Amino acid sequence: MAVKKNQENVGILKKLPVSNKVCTFGSNVKKIGEEDPRKLIHSIKVGLAIALVSLFYYFEPLFNYEGFGVSSMWAVLTVVVVFEFSVGATLGKSVNRGIATFLAGSLGVAAHKLATFSGSNKLQPIILGLSVFSVASIATFMRFVPKLKARYDYGLLIFILTFSMISVSGYRDHVVLDKAITRVTTILIGGAAAIVFNVVIYPVWAGEDLHNLIATYIEDLGISLEGHGTQYFKKLNIKSEEELERISLEEYKCVINSKATEENLVNFAKWEPRHGKFKYRHPWEEYLKIGNLVRKCANSINALNSDLSSCNMTQEGRKKIQEPCTKICIECGSALKEIALSMKTMTLYPTIDSYILKAKASAEKLRSIIRSGGLIEEDELQKLLPTTRIASLMLDLVSNSVEIVDSVNQLGGLMKFKILSSKPKRLGSKSRIPSGSISEAHHVVNVE
Amino acid sequence: MAVKKNQENVGILKKLPVSNKVCTFGSNVKKIGEEDPRKLIHSIKVGLAIALVSLFYYFEPLFNYEGFGVSSMWAVLTVVVVFEFSVGATLGKSVNRGIATFLAGSLGVAAHKLATFSGSNKLQPIILGLSVFSVASIATFMRFVPKLKARYDYGLLIFILTFSMISVSGYRDHVVLDKAITRVTTILIGGAAAIVFNVVIYPVWAGEDLHNLIATYIEDLGISLEGHGTQYFKKLNIKSEEELERISLEEYKCVINSKATEENLVNFAKWEPRHGKFKYRHPWEEYLKIGNLVRKCANSINALNSDLSSCNMTQEGRKKIQEPCTKICIECGSALKEIALSMKTMTLYPTIDSYILKAKASAEKLRSIIRSGGLIEEDELQKLLPTTRIASLMLDLVSNSVEIVDSVNQLGGLMKFKILSSKPKRLGSKSRIPSGSISEAHHVVNVE
Repeated sequence: MAVKKNQENVGILKKLPVSNKVCTFGSNVKKIGEEDPRKLIHSIKVGLAIALVSLFYYFEPLFNYEGFGVSSMWAVLTVVVVFEFSVGATLGKSVNRGIATFLAGSLGVAAHKLATFSGSNKLQPIILGLSVFSVASIATFMRFVPKLKARYDYGLLIFILTFSMISVSGYRDHVVLDKAITRVTTILIGGAAAIVFNVVIYPVWAGEDLHNLIATYIEDLGISLEGHGTQYFKKLNIKSEEELERISLEEYKCVINSKATEENLVNFAKWEPRHGKFKYRHPWEEYLKIGNLVRKCANSINALNSDLSSCNMTQEGRKKIQEPCTKICIECGSALKEIALSMKTMTLYPTIDSYILKAKASAEKLRSIIRSGGLIEEDELQKLLPTTRIASLMLDLVSNSVEIVDSVNQLGGLMKFKILSSKPKRLGSKSRIPSGSISEAHHVVNVE
Repeated sequence: MAVKKNQENVGILKKLPVSNKVCTFGSNVKKIGEEDPRKLIHSIKVGLAIALVSLFYYFEPLFNYEGFGVSSMWAVLTVVVVFEFSVGATLGKSVNRGIATFLAGSLGVAAHKLATFSGSNKLQPIILGLSVFSVASIATFMRFVPKLKARYDYGLLIFILTFSMISVSGYRDHVVLDKAITRVTTILIGGAAAIVFNVVIYPVWAGEDLHNLIATYIEDLGISLEGHGTQYFKKLNIKSEEELERISLEEYKCVINSKATEENLVNFAKWEPRHGKFKYRHPWEEYLKIGNLVRKCANSINALNSDLSSCNMTQEGRKKIQEPCTKICIECGSALKEIALSMKTMTLYPTIDSYILKAKASAEKLRSIIRSGGLIEEDELQKLLPTTRIASLMLDLVSNSVEIVDSVNQLGGLMKFKILSSKPKRLGSKSRIPSGSISEAHHVVNVE
């Protein structure tokens, strides 16, 4: 009876939130694997590397340490921590970890020698405590320096870690130098294993991904622009079924907030050796420049989109500018899609110039339509075009400001802000921490 | 002689690039400390916590483990790794580390028991290897699920780490359960030390920082707007010297790329307990909404700025819209600055409404000036205003696209792209990895 009832309940269960969540989670996981199979491959690579390093220590007791294989632990730990998605990130972390361990190990041994030479039992803990305190404080502060943070954040963390550990462990066991060397060599073995697995099996190059990401962004813009051309400015010509499917107006949206991703990838790519068309000193900064241009273009499309969707263009006005606008969208879209293809295939096509020329010609036509197309005389327009545009931007600003004030007021309601009836005193500007500084301080990029 | 020459060289040395770099670095470091003294305090807190935990293990041999204080190492390591700038980030990492260690420890002991029960010496390494491989692969893949990544990325990493280490070490030393318990307790001690030091000495709350950051962004927009009002649309009234100093047109720029920072802070803030006006389940998502509005407004200011600086407004046109534009800028600016002050002091002022009313009145005036102010008749304008604005956006798009194509061409020159003379074949859309997926995969937020 109970079993039968349970079976009947399955249908109901499916509608329950918990069961729903599990289903969504499962399909999400499946989607991730299908969208980018490299994530699946990466997971298997990590599993293999860790399992093999673990077993290596099982089968080959090459090193004869006392205790329960403390050293093997460090190798496994290094593999887990250092194994990142791309070659650049993995190399960056390995190099940081290796060099930081070596330097901090040497310094730790020196600090320990100094403490021992002092002779007195009372002085020893004071010297060690003070040195750990000052090294940790200075290195932590260094992590706030933007340039060091970008490339050596992990190294600084490992420096603090190794130095403290060598000092503390060094204190109890007097074979400090031995311990330091052990730690360095096992970390080198772990790091080497991570690098080999990462590079040999289906490597993911951050530089290549950056290159393709920017190309995909440009393609997204192109697709969006073509979509605007065909949807808003009426259809001119649609090439094939597949083209239609890919036309979307929202493609550009993911481009707008892409700056952090690009900066991350540039930082990783700088660690990578020559691969394919990418040299060791490849001009990675160029990609940041192109990325900025792409974002600028995405913002223009965004503005256009919001203007178009507010839909207060008259039928007459639309008709007048329809033809050149459609052409501009389609030609610029084609140019962007083709230059994106150029990037992906690393081949320059001669057809791009013709798209650009056509787009420029249409732009000239649009200009002349506005100038003399019967809408208004030239003189009037010259006065009006910039003025009305600025005026309409000003009107936008008012509504933007009102939205912000409203939403803060809403928050104030939730948090039960005090309500004053007098004018506020201004806060001094000195107490103000610049927003850039706040956002930097909280950036967690790090490790072990 | 040599000494004298050296003294003379000091002046020259100052001009050398290396010496310059050191000077810049030094002044950068000083600037960081002055801008946000909390960074200095944080560094000292970290130094203190690490030094004290190290010394605690020196003075109090409470636990009698064999070896050279392996356990003390874990406590020090935990403090170093878990101690973040804000309470939320520290709590998040500690909880992740604690729970992950406990779960992985239990599972590791179970795996070890299973391998031992199998009896056969040949089966043992195979069972252990397979279990490490599958746990590491699955957990690594889980790290790609966006929701898990946001809150439990560190936990998943530590899970892999602990599980592998317990299995490997467990194999050599048969007191596995003991080892697992030791690891869990020392990590708890380290985590607790980090939390206590972080919370007791001058705590930095991510939630409070998020609140203030958004307020500062709104203030920045307000300052920018007021700056536009006074600089571009001529001066109306400037209140004081201090006000003048703070007027800047570029303040809004740091707001545009702030999304990643805000999302990070929201993730940290969710870990924080009640503090001040912020409850445990504070509506943190509201801040993301306000942040989006703020970015929208910053983009409008950006558009206005580029229009204004292209400077093709006629003197006549400027005169006509000057008064309401100045008023809009100043009233909206004041409203934003005041609502920012409201957020910072958590007090609602009655004066905000009057600014908003004045801004709306000016907007109405501006609308009516454009509509009937002599520039052009109403009917014509209704046709023209949206059309010309869209037309001018289209012209922007052409120049944006040309810029993108040019910069990619430049890159192609640097990388020696092939040059084809025929039309390209389109790449299939199936080979295309969505850009969102690429950017996610590379996000490194993590640790030991």
